[in-house]
Amino acid sequence: MNHLKETTKTSEKLFSGRIIDLYLEEVELPNGKTSTREIIKHPGAVAVLALTKDKKLVMVQQYRKAMERVLVEIPAGKLEKGELPEATAKRELEEETGYTTQSLQHLISFYTSPGFADELVHVYYTDDLHVLEEKAELDEDEFVDVLEVTLEEAQQLIDEQRIFDAKTAYAVQYLQLKQALQK
Amino acid sequence: MNHLKETTKTSEKLFSGRIIDLYLEEVELPNGKTSTREIIKHPGAVAVLALTKDKKLVMVQQYRKAMERVLVEIPAGKLEKGELPEATAKRELEEETGYTTQSLQHLISFYTSPGFADELVHVYYTDDLHVLEEKAELDEDEFVDVLEVTLEEAQQLIDEQRIFDAKTAYAVQYLQLKQALQK
Repeated sequence: MNHLKETTKTSEKLFSGRIIDLYLEEVELPNGKTSTREIIKHPGAVAVLALTKDKKLVMVQQYRKAMERVLVEIPAGKLEKGELPEATAKRELEEETGYTTQSLQHLISFYTSPGFADELVHVYYTDDLHVLEEKAELDEDEFVDVLEVTLEEAQQLIDEQRIFDAKTAYAVQYLQLKQALQK
Repeated sequence: MNHLKETTKTSEKLFSGRIIDLYLEEVELPNGKTSTREIIKHPGAVAVLALTKDKKLVMVQQYRKAMERVLVEIPAGKLEKGELPEATAKRELEEETGYTTQSLQHLISFYTSPGFADELVHVYYTDDLHVLEEKAELDEDEFVDVLEVTLEEAQQLIDEQRIFDAKTAYAVQYLQLKQALQK
């Protein structure tokens, strides 16, 4: 793949945040010319496709400041330093929904915005949920509503653009595919 | 949804780039407390799920500096100012693959990283491809290989994590669902 590779000439960290860091890099292109790349470094995240015993999808509704609107998403959260993705998935499920599970199946991992960011999301599946006796605490700057919806209702939320993000669209489509293959 | 809303107290633009801008915002949370949000503004993007006459998926392989590796993705690119998403989709298809089309069907739009970015990707579908007589020019800092793969090969590329991004994983699953529903 060397005919595609870009080589770093300089890399400058312009911002170091709580969640993201920003780098401006000067790169040498495959043809020897120079260009710049704006790059966001992110710790990575997890998401959980969680189904209740009556086959409802557990969703969280929260305000997303980047879009200035409320979105309905599957439970998710960013990786903490040194935490394994599966542990993060269980913790986020507990904090955001009040459910816990002993059984998480890894479905897929994907980069969300490969053009400018290295955020990798690990998506897990569970249909073995138990209500926590004592609800876990959300982060102090996190406010969410929990929704439980059928697959048909989830599709309607997509049509209404209330479900409006890649990982949740992928998760809903995953269930539609699973259902279609079972028929 | 006012019990979820975050109100902007201050917004500071820390970086203005060719592709992304970075803002640091101070917000008032629903409980009256204050927090900060790190926000990336992005012009938005398009992606094209393009099928050849023999049902092969047209993919591009390119170096992604944020991950320091080559990824296989469906053709995609960012919106130019004032350009309609469908026009961008046609242009990116032409530039990256050498195919053109008169028929683009909108499949879905989704935010890629709602936790920190407002990037919205519009995904289109076409199975009506024509080879361009004169290949369109890529951006001068863009280098890609074109691949044409079967759906089974695409699934294998996912298993090998060479297809490794959300929009392409969604697109492959879309075709799998379409195939399952036709049976």
